[in-house]
Amino acid sequence: MSIVVVGSVGIDTIETPFGREENILGGSACYFSLAACNFTDVHMVSSVGEDFPPAYSELLRSKGIDTEGIEISAGGTFRWEGRYDYDMKDPETVSVILGVLGSFDPVVPEKSRDADYLFLANTDPEIQMKVLEQVNSPRVVACDTMNFWIDNKLEELKALLGKVNILIINDSEARQLSEEPLMARAARKVMDMGPEFLIVKRGEYGALLFSREDLFFAPSYMLEQVLDPTGAGDTFAGGFMGYVASMDKDLDFTGFKKGVAYGSVLASFTVEDFSVRRLGSLHKEEIERRYEEFLKLSTM
Amino acid sequence: MSIVVVGSVGIDTIETPFGREENILGGSACYFSLAACNFTDVHMVSSVGEDFPPAYSELLRSKGIDTEGIEISAGGTFRWEGRYDYDMKDPETVSVILGVLGSFDPVVPEKSRDADYLFLANTDPEIQMKVLEQVNSPRVVACDTMNFWIDNKLEELKALLGKVNILIINDSEARQLSEEPLMARAARKVMDMGPEFLIVKRGEYGALLFSREDLFFAPSYMLEQVLDPTGAGDTFAGGFMGYVASMDKDLDFTGFKKGVAYGSVLASFTVEDFSVRRLGSLHKEEIERRYEEFLKLSTM
Repeated sequence: MSIVVVGSVGIDTIETPFGREENILGGSACYFSLAACNFTDVHMVSSVGEDFPPAYSELLRSKGIDTEGIEISAGGTFRWEGRYDYDMKDPETVSVILGVLGSFDPVVPEKSRDADYLFLANTDPEIQMKVLEQVNSPRVVACDTMNFWIDNKLEELKALLGKVNILIINDSEARQLSEEPLMARAARKVMDMGPEFLIVKRGEYGALLFSREDLFFAPSYMLEQVLDPTGAGDTFAGGFMGYVASMDKDLDFTGFKKGVAYGSVLASFTVEDFSVRRLGSLHKEEIERRYEEFLKLSTM
Repeated sequence: MSIVVVGSVGIDTIETPFGREENILGGSACYFSLAACNFTDVHMVSSVGEDFPPAYSELLRSKGIDTEGIEISAGGTFRWEGRYDYDMKDPETVSVILGVLGSFDPVVPEKSRDADYLFLANTDPEIQMKVLEQVNSPRVVACDTMNFWIDNKLEELKALLGKVNILIINDSEARQLSEEPLMARAARKVMDMGPEFLIVKRGEYGALLFSREDLFFAPSYMLEQVLDPTGAGDTFAGGFMGYVASMDKDLDFTGFKKGVAYGSVLASFTVEDFSVRRLGSLHKEEIERRYEEFLKLSTM
């Protein structure tokens, strides 16, 4: 079953202690789509400027991703420059230029409006809501958000959470949104806002999947090399949603556990190189091999 | 099979955002022993002053712990006052009085020298070595350490690591000892120093068990209440070693995985109340119930 994703498409410049790369493909919708496309059809909804390199559009299309919903507008593409320290967490934003994303008014192409799976990647909750309203009757809606929207658009975010099935956020965001330091309580409070399922991303510590009745504690693949952590969370979401859509079942905790495992596996590839480079060269067999290793990690 | 443990016995004063308790029982050897005694015989080696409350010795003995190796010396018992912030990690040390531990020259009682299992809780590596030399031919030797000894007695610590089978430390200590930020590499470097097995404690994120060939990613029990995190790591070690000694097998990764699970379960009780209060009132059935829940946490 196909997925519609709305989120950013951007051009990044990234510096880590292990290198610097300029004008590379980035944005939440790109990482998401390049992960999800390993499992199912993906339709992107986003906006870029006239400066967006055709080679980047070509890369997305070469993976079978539908880019018709990426509007090309007069103006510049979203650009972000970030710098990571040795801990490879919480990058410092050196500069950010919103460009055409600043006036983005999303339009889901007619042919994509019957999608059963919808992912609202991290962006303004008002934009997320506009996209949600254009998809006719999705069976599974998941979304991401970040501290900036919790600080600045909490009411709009809460309105959105009342309409989604799955929220995928990191642990500091779950604590901030719930105002609860203990994760067990934080998760209940977040689910009280609407989502039936909560996925808490914890980087090298793995991920948690919550429902009202169940809890799954996913390990993380143990990496030998981390060059650039950018996009790991969006890749995780793409691996998760891609697998879930490919199963084509109703909301199901057991299936979601496998989705979390695939999300972790896909994210483990992303961070091994800058930008979407590793995702771009990924083969199905590599994914399956790492998935098998992943399953062994927490087997008693 | 019985375990000999050397470590501190102390009197703590602890303040958290949820309360303050003065002159409560603490020390690495106490937490360790009160966890391990649920599985096997435990012989403590430590030192206290004449001010040590008889009720605390009685508590230990009431759990079947052998306290004959706790020397009572002229002077004061080790005292520590610590304060936790809302994150409930890394307490601020308000005051520390070494007391009789400052001149502690450990003597393992004759009857305990044939123990097969030896745990060297966090203390000066020279004291850990002195105890190791007094136990005749232990089959499994495990130890803990901390940043202070890595900073100040690295050579003595490395000499000790050459003689232990299992090192149990937290993740920042593993990174510091190995000078490697990535845990996969850090673990290999630490095992190169001697231990065949490394256990990395990660608090609410669980624990990692490494051997040269294998890796196990243990979840952590999801808590509804944390009142005082003091002693969680020592309790973990006690649950781990206690279970391992009760199996009475040679070094065995599969058995160690279960030990890590029991360690996590025991630690989850400790933090639910101040001091060793929860450990002191714990029943075998509570441990088994939580162990069963623990196993489900990461089952696909």
